[in-house]
Amino acid sequence: MSTAHASDTIPTTVDNANLQELEDTVSRLASHKGVQSVMILNRAGDMLVSRQAGPEAAKFAKQLLETASAYLTSLSEDDEISFLQIRSKQHRELMIAPHEGYLLAVLKR
Amino acid sequence: MSTAHASDTIPTTVDNANLQELEDTVSRLASHKGVQSVMILNRAGDMLVSRQAGPEAAKFAKQLLETASAYLTSLSEDDEISFLQIRSKQHRELMIAPHEGYLLAVLKR
Repeated sequence: MSTAHASDTIPTTVDNANLQELEDTVSRLASHKGVQSVMILNRAGDMLVSRQAGPEAAKFAKQLLETASAYLTSLSEDDEISFLQIRSKQHRELMIAPHEGYLLAVLKR
Repeated sequence: MSTAHASDTIPTTVDNANLQELEDTVSRLASHKGVQSVMILNRAGDMLVSRQAGPEAAKFAKQLLETASAYLTSLSEDDEISFLQIRSKQHRELMIAPHEGYLLAVLKR
């Protein structure tokens, strides 16, 4: 996948210790009531860890973040997303939170 | 602009009475503390009424909604967005709410 959004300060690979930490985070979140899927992507949009989330979900998350980032950048050059949330009529809730070098996405219902 | 997303049940033009109502809504919202811009688009993404929001903002809102809708549709064919919110590190807040045939977008800070 494209690494156009990766920078020197943002890891695109994870070592084993970090990966275990990400796995633990995903497991913890996935055990919450109503959580349908959880994924952690790197800033390039590559899936690092997931539960019940396929490549389609990663693609949509990446597209959403790119559009939202482009909008924020048009308002102020160095602004960044802190949280993105979508609620649906069928009570789905998608939350995406950038966290250090990673993007965490949770789908609830 | 494209009308690919308009359907027979969704107005793409507004009569004078409706337009006055939309104008009033926008004026009311724009007067709230912290509100930087307000816009009402039709479902095709055309700007109907706005305060401090240019065509770029309408383009981004439309893109965001298209991606979010495509994601929801991939989960359940007849699901729809009820609310989309983006918060930024510089404390901007973009909220988009579909409402009947219109889309209301508010940018706060």
